[in-house]
Amino acid sequence: MRVHVRELEYSSSRDVELIDVTEDVERVVEESGVSAGICVISVPHATAALVVNENEKGLIEDMKDKISEIFPKGRGYEHDRIDDNAHAHLASAFLGPSKVLPVHGGKLVRGAWQNIFLVELDGPRNVRRLVVAVLGE
Amino acid sequence: MRVHVRELEYSSSRDVELIDVTEDVERVVEESGVSAGICVISVPHATAALVVNENEKGLIEDMKDKISEIFPKGRGYEHDRIDDNAHAHLASAFLGPSKVLPVHGGKLVRGAWQNIFLVELDGPRNVRRLVVAVLGE
Amino acid sequence: MRVHVRELEYSSSRDVELIDVTEDVERVVEESGVSAGICVISVPHATAALVVNENEKGLIEDMKDKISEIFPKGRGYEHDRIDDNAHAHLASAFLGPSKVLPVHGGKLVRGAWQNIFLVELDGPRNVRRLVVAVLGE
Repeated sequence: MRVHVRELEYSSSRDVELIDVTEDVERVVEESGVSAGICVISVPHATAALVVNENEKGLIEDMKDKISEIFPKGRGYEHDRIDDNAHAHLASAFLGPSKVLPVHGGKLVRGAWQNIFLVELDGPRNVRRLVVAVLGE
Repeated sequence: MRVHVRELEYSSSRDVELIDVTEDVERVVEESGVSAGICVISVPHATAALVVNENEKGLIEDMKDKISEIFPKGRGYEHDRIDDNAHAHLASAFLGPSKVLPVHGGKLVRGAWQNIFLVELDGPRNVRRLVVAVLGE
Repeated sequence: MRVHVRELEYSSSRDVELIDVTEDVERVVEESGVSAGICVISVPHATAALVVNENEKGLIEDMKDKISEIFPKGRGYEHDRIDDNAHAHLASAFLGPSKVLPVHGGKLVRGAWQNIFLVELDGPRNVRRLVVAVLGE
């Protein structure tokens, strides 16, 4: 069995931002040498998340709008007494810290319209880490 | 280690529909010969998703209603200028493209009320693919 | 390859409750002897879930409030004709039954503010099971 773990870094420039990391993840799958198995993509942050969907400019705005609609900023949250980012924690908790996709034929198994996005929920930040683990044979 | 990847196909007959794929996934786990490990169930589509919950007729209606309530159709989404299905993309992005369950004693570890559903969000469609990857020993 | 599957048990004392299981999960990762790989944490229940986020008293209240806001109890759900807990099933379906995190250097890869919570959505319950599967080498 092969296990290949790699850490990547990104910076964000806005409050809420979707950063397409698909090419980088596919490069890690390729360098892993895994032919069949799985790929785990994870963010070690409590105010960021991952989503998988189409990289279309309008849809990216729709996703940001929907996140802000479900998790609006500054609605009297308890956590805002300590830090001004409860909305970002809540969105991160609901969207989740990781995604898992199969690997087959040496490639990440994803649909034509499935891109992988690191979701910044409390930016801008100089360093957002992405951990990619590929397992298989 | 064993890695077993299998692709299944389904068709949907409605706009929003939950298709119970539990038996098919369990069959793939069985044929994998994996005794202990994990099972990744994934849809390579940006307008479909997976959920795990009880297969009870009323609850299935409740899940469809809740999806339509949180992600209503045609609310002036940017993506609707290109394609009329932004609501389906948003629901897919939030519900997620894959689920992961442990395998133990040669069986999928799931609760008595945990069935696996492929969620059609933009049907009807002739072909919806499900990729099942089983890893372990 | 190593595969280590372990089942843990918890009891809940409230209707909705977040139980921090991070230390227990890290103990299972340690006893697995896995140096690099992944850890799957799963609840075999349809009215419980898992979330990953900060263990801060105020934020925990915010998370419970947000769950109750999105999935309010007793809103004429179909499933409530059979059992009085449709809201708990819906929250479980949306939050999901499992989380997956990488393992590297013999440790669970998580951020400083990423704790793992078993989310009770229909308590109190005497027994809530948590299944932890660690795979790698």
